[in-house]
Amino acid sequence: MDQTFASSGSGPGLDTRAVAALAEEVLDWRFKALPAAAAGLTVSQYLATGPALADLGTPLLTLDAGALDHNLRTMARWCADAGVALAPHGKTTMAPALWQAQLEAGSHGITLANLPQLRVARAFGVRRLLLANALLDPAGLRWLAGELAADPDFAFASWVDSVESVRLMDSALRAAGAERPVEVLVELGGPGGRTGARTVDAAVEIADAVRRAPTLRLAGIGGYEGALAHDASEGGLGAVRGYLRSLADLHGRLAGRYADGAAPVVTAGGSAYFDLVAEELGALPEAFVVLRSGAYLAHDDGFYRGISPLGRGGGREGGALRAALHGWARVVSRPEPQLALLDAGKRDLPFDEGLPEPQLVRGGAGPAGAGPVGTAARITALNDQHAFLRDAGDLAPVGAVLRLGISHPCTAFDKWALIPVLDDASAAEPRVTGLVRTFF
Amino acid sequence: MDQTFASSGSGPGLDTRAVAALAEEVLDWRFKALPAAAAGLTVSQYLATGPALADLGTPLLTLDAGALDHNLRTMARWCADAGVALAPHGKTTMAPALWQAQLEAGSHGITLANLPQLRVARAFGVRRLLLANALLDPAGLRWLAGELAADPDFAFASWVDSVESVRLMDSALRAAGAERPVEVLVELGGPGGRTGARTVDAAVEIADAVRRAPTLRLAGIGGYEGALAHDASEGGLGAVRGYLRSLADLHGRLAGRYADGAAPVVTAGGSAYFDLVAEELGALPEAFVVLRSGAYLAHDDGFYRGISPLGRGGGREGGALRAALHGWARVVSRPEPQLALLDAGKRDLPFDEGLPEPQLVRGGAGPAGAGPVGTAARITALNDQHAFLRDAGDLAPVGAVLRLGISHPCTAFDKWALIPVLDDASAAEPRVTGLVRTFF
Repeated sequence: MDQTFASSGSGPGLDTRAVAALAEEVLDWRFKALPAAAAGLTVSQYLATGPALADLGTPLLTLDAGALDHNLRTMARWCADAGVALAPHGKTTMAPALWQAQLEAGSHGITLANLPQLRVARAFGVRRLLLANALLDPAGLRWLAGELAADPDFAFASWVDSVESVRLMDSALRAAGAERPVEVLVELGGPGGRTGARTVDAAVEIADAVRRAPTLRLAGIGGYEGALAHDASEGGLGAVRGYLRSLADLHGRLAGRYADGAAPVVTAGGSAYFDLVAEELGALPEAFVVLRSGAYLAHDDGFYRGISPLGRGGGREGGALRAALHGWARVVSRPEPQLALLDAGKRDLPFDEGLPEPQLVRGGAGPAGAGPVGTAARITALNDQHAFLRDAGDLAPVGAVLRLGISHPCTAFDKWALIPVLDDASAAEPRVTGLVRTFF
Repeated sequence: MDQTFASSGSGPGLDTRAVAALAEEVLDWRFKALPAAAAGLTVSQYLATGPALADLGTPLLTLDAGALDHNLRTMARWCADAGVALAPHGKTTMAPALWQAQLEAGSHGITLANLPQLRVARAFGVRRLLLANALLDPAGLRWLAGELAADPDFAFASWVDSVESVRLMDSALRAAGAERPVEVLVELGGPGGRTGARTVDAAVEIADAVRRAPTLRLAGIGGYEGALAHDASEGGLGAVRGYLRSLADLHGRLAGRYADGAAPVVTAGGSAYFDLVAEELGALPEAFVVLRSGAYLAHDDGFYRGISPLGRGGGREGGALRAALHGWARVVSRPEPQLALLDAGKRDLPFDEGLPEPQLVRGGAGPAGAGPVGTAARITALNDQHAFLRDAGDLAPVGAVLRLGISHPCTAFDKWALIPVLDDASAAEPRVTGLVRTFF
């Protein structure tokens, strides 16, 4: 029987052999994170040499194995306690090995943002995919129809937010001779928000259009509360709660109109307000509530540290999320007493939700291992290939390597095709225990 | 005889067979610019199918063949007229096929910013490389020493801007058993600038340290005037001229101290002020003056359109540069009358020096081909995977595809591993005539 997005199914959730095969990829100059010494070895052969952070060049982005594991377990437990499912946004990492870890930790499926990302996921056999967007490209819909027809275990749902987009989807799917109906969720937005119908009435009208389209199946509703607020202020949290209550209203209005079969999906929840989603929607009758948080896995030392429900107040148990991503950059110039230039720039580290944060220095004036960089030290600007570090004094001499906390995982992962995983980014001599491949 | 960076040599300047071999790369889901229909074909097989822009999905970044050719010829002629050499900054594109086009148009070599970029260039046999930065990583210097020893035709020069970095380079090169001395240029900076010694006296002291280091060879001087101004105001141009005159002073102070052999290199010139570089330094005695402009090739519809000497006032002949890069994005939502959401975001298009500019619409209300998008239409924000388009009215309905002008080529190229080349991005039905591979 054809799977639906909400049906439970079983099995690993993706093609574990395809993920494992990434360990056989041959390393060379295409991967800027790796030194010349790795060239010609496969990923597994290189890891077998026992490399250390000290063997890698700069600039560099790394993941921390302990933080990843902690965050996976913390979020899985939080969702289980809250009684909600998780289909983490896979666009954050675009890393099949990390998607596998999320699925093995209990995630229901993977959320993605566009067609190229769906194609990556299907190349790795991800079985349940939620597109938190509309898919209107006729060639893309033809591809989707082919994927669904070829694999009855593949379950997919996308969003629609207008009668016109329903018409475009239906028309393209008919032209493609689609065999299985495509599940869609009606997207509700909010005033000043991003996509999504602006009123519950408009959303109901779209749902009725979906019910009339033979190539579509009304599988639920959804939206993105993160577009309605940008902080945890009273006003921001109030706007989010108001939106979530309108989503609950819409669910009530659609009772009896959803397609038969599995429970209707109700999905909301980026990485900033998923606690409110669970509070407002967790007890909704006859709903399969799905969070889509993606940033929790890597977390950060910036925007999400400030706003995550598991950064702000800690979890119900197990404490706050931990930052798993770190930049590493070398001091290449000290042209003025309180100015140092590092060899990491906009090509290497995120800069769109706050600049990197100096945290530790290696190879400085202190003893071997990592030392402090001073509380006054800060990065004031990034150029394409440089960072401006100010007020590190003598703690950051030419040749020293700094560890940098980052803000916004989404614009960190997409700058690295291969990201070394360290056993412990805070150890005196971190070891490389893995290499995570991304596909952007 | 071992080549030096300034010596003339002959030949194609890189391994043209390695570049040609990129046409045999097999296309698949790893390249987000290409549709599913291309999967399994090589680049050359796919191009032989005669694809059109209309066959490609969104989001998308393209190059315009006519603009690339015009810009190559315009800049080559400008440099010839000005009597300066060009080693274009290859970090802009990181595309060996475009480097080859630049070398074939007369460029002396390629400039790069860091070790991972040097390794890409050497994988494609680029023979003359200028590192506009210091290379202090011991493992990187060991790799460099090996490359120089293995290939007497490989010519390389990097920058140093402190006595301490001279010591670190010399120490690492000795430890690596370097056979050929590494050519270095003493970098002069300016007040409020980026890297570079802050006074001519300090630069002379560094030059003397280079002369004492047996593993190094004092090959010239250089710097980056672009860090000293950010517009073409009188104050900005004055700061740039003042800096260039101090570079000329330094050249005079070092007369008789440069290493014997080819003429000493004097290099400056990003993409914003290369006309001033030619004016101030072009007639310098006994100097091989090298510009490093990289953005001229793709140019843009934003920052460089505003500041390039060949955008501001046009060239001596041949007119202004033309924007070769365009984004393409689909309207996926029209949730409010004057708000449309496009399917291109921070992962797809540059946003750090100005947001994309709506230029044309395809598949809108008008006739087939491309139509106007309205003068009020503008992009007001990018999210990770969305753009907010306002005030396009009825000209941008759901499903329509917009062409977007971009600002800042450096942060456009690095978001795409494969970039389709169109015969004419302004044609009613543009054809795909090439695919440019980048390595970031």
